[in-house]
Amino acid sequence: MTQDTTQQHTAPETTPDRVEAAARAAHAAAPALAALPPTVRAAALVALADRLAANADDLVATAMEETGLAEARLRGELNRTAVQLRLFADTVLDGAHLDARIDFADPDFALGPRPDVRSANEPVGPVLNFAAGNFPFAFSVAGGDTAAALAAANPVVVKAHPGHPRLARQTAALAAAALEEAGLPTGTMQLIEGQDAGVAMLRHPLVKAASFTGSLRAGRLLADIAAARPAPIPFYGELGSVNPVFATPGAIAERGPEFAAGLVASVSGSAGQLCTKPGLVFLPAGHGLDAAIADAAAAVGEHRMLDPRIAEHYTAGREAILSAAGVRFIAPGSIRTDEHGQGWATPTILAVPLDVFRPHPDALLTECFGPIAILVESPADTDYADLLETLFEGELTVTVHRTDREDITALARAAARRAGRVLFDGWPTGVAVTPAMRHGGPWPATTNGGTSVGTAAIARFLRGVAYQNAPADVLPAPLRDDNPWGVPQRIAPAGESAGWGDRARA
Amino acid sequence: MTQDTTQQHTAPETTPDRVEAAARAAHAAAPALAALPPTVRAAALVALADRLAANADDLVATAMEETGLAEARLRGELNRTAVQLRLFADTVLDGAHLDARIDFADPDFALGPRPDVRSANEPVGPVLNFAAGNFPFAFSVAGGDTAAALAAANPVVVKAHPGHPRLARQTAALAAAALEEAGLPTGTMQLIEGQDAGVAMLRHPLVKAASFTGSLRAGRLLADIAAARPAPIPFYGELGSVNPVFATPGAIAERGPEFAAGLVASVSGSAGQLCTKPGLVFLPAGHGLDAAIADAAAAVGEHRMLDPRIAEHYTAGREAILSAAGVRFIAPGSIRTDEHGQGWATPTILAVPLDVFRPHPDALLTECFGPIAILVESPADTDYADLLETLFEGELTVTVHRTDREDITALARAAARRAGRVLFDGWPTGVAVTPAMRHGGPWPATTNGGTSVGTAAIARFLRGVAYQNAPADVLPAPLRDDNPWGVPQRIAPAGESAGWGDRARA
Repeated sequence: MTQDTTQQHTAPETTPDRVEAAARAAHAAAPALAALPPTVRAAALVALADRLAANADDLVATAMEETGLAEARLRGELNRTAVQLRLFADTVLDGAHLDARIDFADPDFALGPRPDVRSANEPVGPVLNFAAGNFPFAFSVAGGDTAAALAAANPVVVKAHPGHPRLARQTAALAAAALEEAGLPTGTMQLIEGQDAGVAMLRHPLVKAASFTGSLRAGRLLADIAAARPAPIPFYGELGSVNPVFATPGAIAERGPEFAAGLVASVSGSAGQLCTKPGLVFLPAGHGLDAAIADAAAAVGEHRMLDPRIAEHYTAGREAILSAAGVRFIAPGSIRTDEHGQGWATPTILAVPLDVFRPHPDALLTECFGPIAILVESPADTDYADLLETLFEGELTVTVHRTDREDITALARAAARRAGRVLFDGWPTGVAVTPAMRHGGPWPATTNGGTSVGTAAIARFLRGVAYQNAPADVLPAPLRDDNPWGVPQRIAPAGESAGWGDRARA
Repeated sequence: MTQDTTQQHTAPETTPDRVEAAARAAHAAAPALAALPPTVRAAALVALADRLAANADDLVATAMEETGLAEARLRGELNRTAVQLRLFADTVLDGAHLDARIDFADPDFALGPRPDVRSANEPVGPVLNFAAGNFPFAFSVAGGDTAAALAAANPVVVKAHPGHPRLARQTAALAAAALEEAGLPTGTMQLIEGQDAGVAMLRHPLVKAASFTGSLRAGRLLADIAAARPAPIPFYGELGSVNPVFATPGAIAERGPEFAAGLVASVSGSAGQLCTKPGLVFLPAGHGLDAAIADAAAAVGEHRMLDPRIAEHYTAGREAILSAAGVRFIAPGSIRTDEHGQGWATPTILAVPLDVFRPHPDALLTECFGPIAILVESPADTDYADLLETLFEGELTVTVHRTDREDITALARAAARRAGRVLFDGWPTGVAVTPAMRHGGPWPATTNGGTSVGTAAIARFLRGVAYQNAPADVLPAPLRDDNPWGVPQRIAPAGESAGWGDRARA
């Protein structure tokens, strides 16, 4: 959200009048959208996925121009975005996210006659989604947050990322048309542009939740605005992470070269501009991997960074790391700026002994968005679990490389307390789009521990409502005895309550 | 959270040193508590319920002295509190709240080989619970928020309500002993006292979530503190509500006298000091219920209010309502202060025509905590749904009295958008403790739409963690193939993903 003076495109700012109109249109669409049967809403998500796939050539061409990302990466990302929409279509049909509960009336209840009580999740209302710059498809206009909010039956207003304004408009137009043709109300999908417009929409009383992927600084600013509203709203921000990796002596002894190659690939992919890029790697001193890492890094070509502002931030962050005391180059890497202001980088891998790093880790513990990583060379008997709990607060991922001969239980438990995802013998980049996946973690990884990947992401955009002694004809479909949507209903029959707690009696 | 100068007891403030020690003790207890099997944690909740029941005579005697609430009400509330603990014991054993998901590895996945990904909810960490004054058992030391946080396997620090300090200490001592004897770690349940101590604990970095039941003013203050921390934490506040009631012409014609009696009972029970007390009642002009309401109100004896501060607030709030233009007395009611500073009240029921109320509703739309309600006499053709959406923002409850001959679908849908619970042909006070119940609603009913009653309340104190390619022996129990805790596991087998979205294809 910093003022960007170097960017070459000049995205038009959505005017206050149009922000107001967009908020009202989203609000007006909400009841009709919520009333549609899941079959229609799921088919609309699939139609959107199909529409994106059918326009892949055009979309990828625009994305390449605007972001500098490689064609293969962008095609893969678009495919992932479509798969994500299909996954949420299945989620909509499945209905487990509605958490439908039915407690029949119980005249013999221990606390006196109990009414019929039923509850289910309902859409929270219009959602504002701040698109990210580094995933122009998967975390942008039709990305994960949008898919989750739509799946929850909420209208979505996307605040376009200034890094790819033409792609944002192209995607939004395709999406709005696809959803409307599939029977969703006008106003279900809208785009706004510009920082002031985004903040105005975040403050708008008709907006009921917001999501964001970006920097800690911008995310904190927006989270504070959401919390300070006369009526605060939940703000789901994914703010970044250092993603520490811990490699045991056994793992390095057993698979050193493979580890080196995997590390360089994970650090340099997409020029390191990924939220899950591993920034700090703890491994045994005397690992002997310098040459393998340097060779792998030297084989990586120059990659354009997303935009001049990111290149500028990366240059400054890299400088700060390079100037820290006791840092040793393994792969020096490079960053240069071309005549258009664009940055071009090759991967930088450094090393520092644990005893130098540990007393003043601040400079090295800050996320540096780009192709850089620091190896922290640690004595073989280092207690990684203690190190993790001492140094880290909240991370998207913690990675452990180990062998079956080593007991890493304590490290795994510590990692689970600090991160949204704990992974083993792999690399955190390339987040799989699967129902159980989580992309989140304690502050500052996210503002509140929610996930923005995986089908549990839908929970952020729902709220529960209970109905007491409701006439059958006003109950929402998921709570009716005849269950017309066929959703899972959790039924507590009369009388069962008498046994509460008995199962647990010693 | 206002400074209370009139209160007679002088609760000692927990010192900063003891706040620090309590935070550390809770933090230290967290991993051991989380590692206990559900059978042990469930049995501990039941042991706590049994301990409360076994000490009912002592606890109720203290509560009567400190709160002025009637013995029958307090015995009922203690029973409800025990039932709530047992309900959460069953929830712990059931395990559905863990949302365990297993996606097996899939080498043929559309986006490339997919790793084994599993996720489940884990405890969020130490929870701070600000006890309420009006439910010295059910929303205090061993009340709903504590039960939910313990069920989620979190250590709890309760900030005692100054209205019942001796009862708070008595309950906390019983609870800590019962839990520890049941095998839970020391530090699982602790009590702190005093406003400064509560705020210091809310700011403490080792506290990971907080809950609160009380006034909008205090709740907003605390919510802002939680949001402004260097590392913000979720703050689950239940801040109050006017709880509008809408009665159709048919309902009044069919069951007028029953309606009048129910209304007076709901407004006057516990001297109206309930979050769900109906404060505004919309009903047809010419309802003819004045005499029935006046007679029922006249039959209600004087009831002591909880403490001098609440009596003072009630006196001022009632004055403001009485002085509003166009207000007519149906039952005048009374409030007086005795020689100990305690307030004694009888129910006040007023009426105002809709056309007088509607243009400047502010004075009458604010919650007035005590035995007072305002009837808004409305023309028979009034669009209640529109009225509800125009006047109200977020409510704990909306109540509809209707007949089968009237179509109230639009009103019910509007109510669901504004409230956490919609009830029909009944009264919102006396919240049933059942799995599907919800006690929450959009701001300002709550800070974030969560519920503090019903088993879904546990979700506030959990966070999801994903494990990728984890060795079997480090997976938490709910995610193991052999499922030692016997929890529901949602398994997406390899290959199924190929069909994503196909079910929804038009």
